Amino acid sequence: MNTAISRDDCLALDQADPLRPLRSFFDLPKQSQPTIYLDGNSLGALPKATPTAVAQVITQEWGQDLIQSWNKAGWFNMPQRLGDQLAPLIGAGHGEVVMTDTTSVNLYKVLCAAAELAQQRHPEKRVLLSETSNFPTDLYIAQSVCNQYQLRLVLVDASAVKEALTADVALVMLTHVNYRTGAMYEMAEITELAHRVGALTVWDLAHSAGAVPVDLREANADYAVGCGYKYLNGGPGAPAFVWANSKVLGTTTQPLSGWWGHVRPFAFDTSYEPKPGIDQYLCGTQSILALTAMRCGLDIFDHAKTLGGMTAIRKKSLALTDLFMALCASRCIAFGLQNVTPTDPRYRGSHVSLAAANDGYAMMQALIARGVIGDFRRGDAAGEPDLLRFGFTPLYTRFVDVWDAVQQLVEMLQNAEWKRPEFNREQVVT
Amino acid sequence: MNTAISRDDCLALDQADPLRPLRSFFDLPKQSQPTIYLDGNSLGALPKATPTAVAQVITQEWGQDLIQSWNKAGWFNMPQRLGDQLAPLIGAGHGEVVMTDTTSVNLYKVLCAAAELAQQRHPEKRVLLSETSNFPTDLYIAQSVCNQYQLRLVLVDASAVKEALTADVALVMLTHVNYRTGAMYEMAEITELAHRVGALTVWDLAHSAGAVPVDLREANADYAVGCGYKYLNGGPGAPAFVWANSKVLGTTTQPLSGWWGHVRPFAFDTSYEPKPGIDQYLCGTQSILALTAMRCGLDIFDHAKTLGGMTAIRKKSLALTDLFMALCASRCIAFGLQNVTPTDPRYRGSHVSLAAANDGYAMMQALIARGVIGDFRRGDAAGEPDLLRFGFTPLYTRFVDVWDAVQQLVEMLQNAEWKRPEFNREQVVT
Repeated sequence: MNTAISRDDCLALDQADPLRPLRSFFDLPKQSQPTIYLDGNSLGALPKATPTAVAQVITQEWGQDLIQSWNKAGWFNMPQRLGDQLAPLIGAGHGEVVMTDTTSVNLYKVLCAAAELAQQRHPEKRVLLSETSNFPTDLYIAQSVCNQYQLRLVLVDASAVKEALTADVALVMLTHVNYRTGAMYEMAEITELAHRVGALTVWDLAHSAGAVPVDLREANADYAVGCGYKYLNGGPGAPAFVWANSKVLGTTTQPLSGWWGHVRPFAFDTSYEPKPGIDQYLCGTQSILALTAMRCGLDIFDHAKTLGGMTAIRKKSLALTDLFMALCASRCIAFGLQNVTPTDPRYRGSHVSLAAANDGYAMMQALIARGVIGDFRRGDAAGEPDLLRFGFTPLYTRFVDVWDAVQQLVEMLQNAEWKRPEFNREQVVT
Repeated sequence: MNTAISRDDCLALDQADPLRPLRSFFDLPKQSQPTIYLDGNSLGALPKATPTAVAQVITQEWGQDLIQSWNKAGWFNMPQRLGDQLAPLIGAGHGEVVMTDTTSVNLYKVLCAAAELAQQRHPEKRVLLSETSNFPTDLYIAQSVCNQYQLRLVLVDASAVKEALTADVALVMLTHVNYRTGAMYEMAEITELAHRVGALTVWDLAHSAGAVPVDLREANADYAVGCGYKYLNGGPGAPAFVWANSKVLGTTTQPLSGWWGHVRPFAFDTSYEPKPGIDQYLCGTQSILALTAMRCGLDIFDHAKTLGGMTAIRKKSLALTDLFMALCASRCIAFGLQNVTPTDPRYRGSHVSLAAANDGYAMMQALIARGVIGDFRRGDAAGEPDLLRFGFTPLYTRFVDVWDAVQQLVEMLQNAEWKRPEFNREQVVT
């Protein structure tokens, strides 16, 4: 990419963007100063349809029709209907996905089911392999499952995962796109290597679903979970999703055996009998308000299908991140900001992170004060650097947003605004 | 109670009801025919404040402020804030309750923590004791925990629970108010008997919280969970709650060790360290929309406090169920409907169930067609009868509603309307 690209060039790219109509499906911030939202990988933007849809469910379906809405309004099978809507985005089949609970809870379910299956097949394998910089909640849940199933959690650097796939590995649990660096695994290749040594694969698609093409069936993955409130735009704390390959589904049960996973939930049997399909990963009653907002997020992907779908989304995502990396390379290096995201598009998700020595927190605060919303991820004792993280969501991020964001970043750096005391009072950030 | 009570008597009771102002806090169904909603023990009615509160969160906090609302709008500690709001209704202290996940998921957490603790204290005890007619999801979850901890699930009739509390019992798990019969356990007495044999107690408050007085600390209970969408009016699939006695909290960890239960969730440590208090029962990111609706339900109990609180709620609940039982005894017995709910107020929750031989489903459908919404619970092979179930929610149910409901029931029975074919096509009901 030509790094001498101008703002006008970006405007022209937006004009030519086949996904351009999708931005109008969102209610983006209307602040006194223009906001550029580059944090859709943490909390996706609000679909315009959501307020009305949720209001309708509250006032009519809940308020007026009350208990009858479980049948009349189809509340019962919302987890399945939404799962079917999501399925094409991740290469899953009809009836193979449910939207329910949280990513952490779903991860626990699949890790337990996988650990049980591994134990049946290869009781001698005792390792659950993951990556040191995997998202912490995944590691916490994995620790718990390791305690319960007497497995040993082994964490390695991303670059060492392939060689760590040895005969003692029972399960490999990876997040497809790393939440810090935006680095993406080659899912089919890792899965094949894992299967070759008799290990099962569990994929967390939190930073993948709706952002990069995923083909779970093609990759022959075993289990997957993911998040509804990032690129899928389901709202804060939206329901998560869970998928299991039909080859492993039903070989073992997951331990959160609530009535919604029972084959006849309203027969009120005293003993548990799981539903045959992915429905056995349901547990308790899900928030209908949360599922309704989730549906509005997924509906936009139905529109995206008519404009090129995930292929077009991926193409634009790479163009946006390419542009951002190129502009930063030419304009921000002088200020000590170093790109840590893979430049090779095969290994890149949809966000870009810049390492920032020790001043990352204040820099992001100063940038937010200029209306550019990214986020900050602290480094760690092991030497991982502080990161400024920028998420690019092809459904609503424009090329001109990228250009303007870099311009704001450069101006902020030039003025050393991050040195102001008000940007150095750290508070909790997501 | 005088069974010759007239409709005018009921209108007078409503006039004198100190909780009368609370009905105006709800948006009750405005159908062409008047609706009497007696199913608030399945799905509570809509608080008037909910639509605006949720709309505000969606359009302003999510839509405009986006990721910043985690701090700015206090999203982070909603599970704790709502827990504190709920705590006085169940005799829990400040900082002792969180609202999160579903009842089934929370039950799994506390049963695992309790099983672990029981194993530490008395490894020889191998029985998890419960009641045969406990709500099925509780039994399903208990089965799963028994499998994981090599416990044996023993189910007995409610009447046999006390004598079944023998030396081999590690845990006793009971639902305080039975979902079928409305029978209520004496929590303090059972807990004391359990402790005497060295067993831990786990209470499900699904049909208790907001309906009957509960004093977890006074009863010296060990763990409790409960539901937000019944008497607490949090909306369909509202977040559930979880409590643990400070004496047992922290002795063991629960296995759903997600980042929200971590002592420093945003330090992104690679290893899990639980928060010290009940916060360690949090796991993943909760739906902020669902929590907002939940808050509106709890707000009404804050108003109720100024009108006599749970004491007044209990007094009215007993008066409503007394009235219903008295009217049914005098007017419905002839049609074969038999009350199965305890008449002794010490052992009665806030709903009443009538056994109905084999025609219960059609009878309830015919009654619903007349605008009286109760629900139906099928009997089982063990001889439990089909039940017509009527929930009385003192916040919005009036004495005249009880009178009118019985009148509709009697007219329906007199006309044998339930024999019409349209009422005999069974579909899924909650």
